[in-house]
Amino acid sequence: MNRFNKHIFVCENTRPEGHPRGCCADKESEKIREIFKKRLKEIGKSSTVRANAAGCLDACEHGVTVVIYPEQVWYGKVTKDDVEEIIQKHIVNNQPVKRLMIKDKNFNKDASK
Amino acid sequence: MNRFNKHIFVCENTRPEGHPRGCCADKESEKIREIFKKRLKEIGKSSTVRANAAGCLDACEHGVTVVIYPEQVWYGKVTKDDVEEIIQKHIVNNQPVKRLMIKDKNFNKDASK
Repeated sequence: MNRFNKHIFVCENTRPEGHPRGCCADKESEKIREIFKKRLKEIGKSSTVRANAAGCLDACEHGVTVVIYPEQVWYGKVTKDDVEEIIQKHIVNNQPVKRLMIKDKNFNKDASK
Repeated sequence: MNRFNKHIFVCENTRPEGHPRGCCADKESEKIREIFKKRLKEIGKSSTVRANAAGCLDACEHGVTVVIYPEQVWYGKVTKDDVEEIIQKHIVNNQPVKRLMIKDKNFNKDASK
């Protein structure tokens, strides 16, 4: 593996108030990323897993959107309360959190409806 | 493959003037991403390959830093003039551009010195 075992990108895009697609920044995405960073540090994984800010991931209607590489798992409607489950299941145990995966085959090809 | 065949993240982090690590935004990273976007559109790949803004990728000393997933290839010192080579070799032909890969095994494990 190269630099990171897992690379978590949290959309922090901002759009003007009232924009029809909305934006992740209005849904506490910055705070969500901060919690990821804090927890990764606490469990000793901050050197191998990075919680990164991202510009628009073009999944606005699913926001807050998070994509984790290298496996490219797309999570939608992520809230602060979901971070710990993603950390424990996906980051620690390498098991994607199915309930949070975007249910659209264009995002997650194996998404069950 | 899920949403994107390739997902290009270009660091657009900004730091205050004079910061010892510098920042990618000062080295035209936003313009570099714009060129990626324009060229991807022109070659008909904008629906399967995304050139995304990223916050700090923690590779400031190598900036402008670009990382391409899912293969996690790290490019450093990327300039506007390098975009076309990355597009043609890496994106179109799936061959990383060795001369631009960060020569540090912590970033690209197979990096030749």
